[in-house]
Amino acid sequence: MSAQSFNFAGQHILSVNQFNRDAIEYIFHIANQMRPYAQRQKRTEVLRGAILGNLFFEPSTRTRVSFGTAFNLLGGEVRETVGMSNSALAKGESLYDTARVLSGYSDIIAMRHPQAGSVAEFSGGSRVPVINGGDGANEHPTQALLDLYTIEKECKSHGSTIDGLHIAMIGDLKYGRTVHSLCKLLSLYNNIHFTLISPTELAMPESILSAITNGGHKLTITDQLSGSVDADICYQTRIQEERFTSQDEADKFRGKFRLDQAIYTKHFQSKTVIMHPLPRDSRAEANELDNDLNQHPNLAIFRQTDNGVLVRMALFALTLGVENIMQQHEKPVLWQTPKSTL
Amino acid sequence: MSAQSFNFAGQHILSVNQFNRDAIEYIFHIANQMRPYAQRQKRTEVLRGAILGNLFFEPSTRTRVSFGTAFNLLGGEVRETVGMSNSALAKGESLYDTARVLSGYSDIIAMRHPQAGSVAEFSGGSRVPVINGGDGANEHPTQALLDLYTIEKECKSHGSTIDGLHIAMIGDLKYGRTVHSLCKLLSLYNNIHFTLISPTELAMPESILSAITNGGHKLTITDQLSGSVDADICYQTRIQEERFTSQDEADKFRGKFRLDQAIYTKHFQSKTVIMHPLPRDSRAEANELDNDLNQHPNLAIFRQTDNGVLVRMALFALTLGVENIMQQHEKPVLWQTPKSTL
Amino acid sequence: MSAQSFNFAGQHILSVNQFNRDAIEYIFHIANQMRPYAQRQKRTEVLRGAILGNLFFEPSTRTRVSFGTAFNLLGGEVRETVGMSNSALAKGESLYDTARVLSGYSDIIAMRHPQAGSVAEFSGGSRVPVINGGDGANEHPTQALLDLYTIEKECKSHGSTIDGLHIAMIGDLKYGRTVHSLCKLLSLYNNIHFTLISPTELAMPESILSAITNGGHKLTITDQLSGSVDADICYQTRIQEERFTSQDEADKFRGKFRLDQAIYTKHFQSKTVIMHPLPRDSRAEANELDNDLNQHPNLAIFRQTDNGVLVRMALFALTLGVENIMQQHEKPVLWQTPKSTL
Repeated sequence: MSAQSFNFAGQHILSVNQFNRDAIEYIFHIANQMRPYAQRQKRTEVLRGAILGNLFFEPSTRTRVSFGTAFNLLGGEVRETVGMSNSALAKGESLYDTARVLSGYSDIIAMRHPQAGSVAEFSGGSRVPVINGGDGANEHPTQALLDLYTIEKECKSHGSTIDGLHIAMIGDLKYGRTVHSLCKLLSLYNNIHFTLISPTELAMPESILSAITNGGHKLTITDQLSGSVDADICYQTRIQEERFTSQDEADKFRGKFRLDQAIYTKHFQSKTVIMHPLPRDSRAEANELDNDLNQHPNLAIFRQTDNGVLVRMALFALTLGVENIMQQHEKPVLWQTPKSTL
Repeated sequence: MSAQSFNFAGQHILSVNQFNRDAIEYIFHIANQMRPYAQRQKRTEVLRGAILGNLFFEPSTRTRVSFGTAFNLLGGEVRETVGMSNSALAKGESLYDTARVLSGYSDIIAMRHPQAGSVAEFSGGSRVPVINGGDGANEHPTQALLDLYTIEKECKSHGSTIDGLHIAMIGDLKYGRTVHSLCKLLSLYNNIHFTLISPTELAMPESILSAITNGGHKLTITDQLSGSVDADICYQTRIQEERFTSQDEADKFRGKFRLDQAIYTKHFQSKTVIMHPLPRDSRAEANELDNDLNQHPNLAIFRQTDNGVLVRMALFALTLGVENIMQQHEKPVLWQTPKSTL
Repeated sequence: MSAQSFNFAGQHILSVNQFNRDAIEYIFHIANQMRPYAQRQKRTEVLRGAILGNLFFEPSTRTRVSFGTAFNLLGGEVRETVGMSNSALAKGESLYDTARVLSGYSDIIAMRHPQAGSVAEFSGGSRVPVINGGDGANEHPTQALLDLYTIEKECKSHGSTIDGLHIAMIGDLKYGRTVHSLCKLLSLYNNIHFTLISPTELAMPESILSAITNGGHKLTITDQLSGSVDADICYQTRIQEERFTSQDEADKFRGKFRLDQAIYTKHFQSKTVIMHPLPRDSRAEANELDNDLNQHPNLAIFRQTDNGVLVRMALFALTLGVENIMQQHEKPVLWQTPKSTL
């Protein structure tokens, strides 16, 4: 597990486009080293005294807490801001000013904002590294990285690799920034087979399809789940019925992009790993990923969120340049921890 | 001060029903040991690096901050979530999913939620201990424990014990989960005299009355404060006038369930300790607990909130299994602290 | 740089009126010692285990985060409350009760509240020091102190002192608590020349003018920026057009109280330092301080916010009585930090 070393110290993490395959493998190499800290076998205090500015101008509980926890697990402190209604941004302050001011209050910033491009604009005024926690319809690079990291771990536990992977993506492939970024990252690997299953109205954009085919990968496109799909990964996303042109159209597709135990058994093989970016709608009328798969060993959705902590820890360690000294500042965990998963 | 030892490590704290008298005495025994840390005579870092997920899906400033402070006083970090309007729960995520995800972000969770039963349901998906910080009309076990702990301390300072206590409860005894839980806990002790003073419309529920009488305790029920009440404790609660069937009815009772210096002197003895779950309405039209008692030495309402920190510290230490090693990780307090109370 | 020593331990910081010049110089002497911690050359853990109650009943992202960061930089923990809509205060709890309760949860409190006088009232019930983070139209003493501290640093870098300073204040001088407090503080020094430039409707209140003239300072009052202003500092504030009696009146003054590169060059000397309390409105229609000055070396607006951290660190250290032992608890900074400014 020796990966080529990269120096990310002082860099912003804004987009998946800034990584090549070697860089990603180095990030994952560091993420692997975070596992004993996240599993509470031991602690590290390498970032004791460092401050994360966790700026969620658009609320997102799980992403916000995941960033904060990741920073705490490295020993650092977190100062948070949630929402924008009372902020100076709402009163006409420029992102440049906000960045100049708030970057004086922390050592690193994680930021979510509803407007595409806003995090990159903010980073132009920041004096500390900025990690994009989601900027509207544009990018959510840590989600894409944790998805890819999960795919690698799941492949490894099945004795395979990302190279040669067959992934089926199901649902709303048009509006989901998650699947777009994941396709870009997977395209950096070799010989991937993408099976894209979506209603025509919600098909994967042309730019992503080009990235896939330009990478020499195999592409199968269909508007419904049928027959046997020999996929290693089934990446399920939410479809919102209001996306369809009419209720008739929506009714026509009802259940065609949903996954439950029966549909899984009918169309997939026993090896197929189920992923979902979460949250999922678990209400009765939802059309998504059923609770009857909750105990299935191949349901990786909670491994995804657990892995998100590891990936975010890795990005913090890398951008702050401490990835090689974490072990020197380890401490024992004194409390009893029931965690056996992860 | 040797109490029977219990192992709470890894357990959820969901309801007062899960404790017997010996368990409560062990919790209080540990709470007593928290006093020097809360009084800033010294610190402990036994939970350094541990993370509390402080999930207040229903806002409550004092309970939230009390939990957070208690965890900080043991050396741990706090990641907070307040409100639910932007959360995935509001978008149809199940409590099971929320619990599975968020329990990957912390070592222990304190949770408040407006819906009865929600915290127990959440705990079913959590991989770490969950402490109920209030689930709607159902339970608020840490409030009940801090009330009982306060009663024990107040009794002790008057040379008595909980056994043989006479407690008067005044006001809205129908809707107050606080008095319900406190009655259950007191019923575990011996020979308690409950004097319940409330308008008929707001009388204590039958189930609680049964618990009291089944425990062999003495019960006095009346619809107004009259004569001399030989109580050790007067537990006052808020009455909201809109609870009455008509304004005439409300006016009839106006002042009958209020406590001020004159009413206190008329009906109670000089030893009687005044308690209230707080917050109290201090506006002129309020019908509750007057500010003219603020300097009374028997007013224990702020000792209650101070004691809440000790009790919550004890529950954190117990559920994380560190109650016997706190002293090994003590540090000096370097700053000057004006606190003389508690 | 030996300043007369003062003992602020246990004191509330409520108003600029509580300081004389010697006290201010001692605060600034301590603030100077905070620079290496804020610049991340090293850390101090003197307040490790201490808890700041950061109570922002009125939201203010930058002031709140600045206080929190300042406390973290001294090694302490922060428990925050933002907003008031769900708080007990909104349900009729008195500030006295809130203070009694919440002061049991922290070692020191920073508080903002929309109502003038509220922080002082709160401090009457608090058992720990309270620092006023802004109470409505009344006071914002840490802003005034950071402004004065910035003026001293800017003067020093130009080889001068506050004594003998010429400061021009521009814009809304009637409603800005910032300029009022700053005038009071500057009046403690010698031989200041105040040039006050504002529309007549928004002129500096008489009470402040009296403080200035009673201090023997020079006062120039005008309703528009004209000619050459030989000022060391140009302190710009926001004018809101709705302050004028009519749109005609507003239009008449449009651009008269705005600052951009051309206006600066026309009216000020190359030495003149530009300050602003921030946030500024950077939208096209704003009438304030233009972005074309962003790269000007004399634009001190971001040095102001950076200095705010130093001043707040100093106030925390002083009120907690640790200002002389910070160096004994220093630790190295392990991460790579790109900060070169401040």
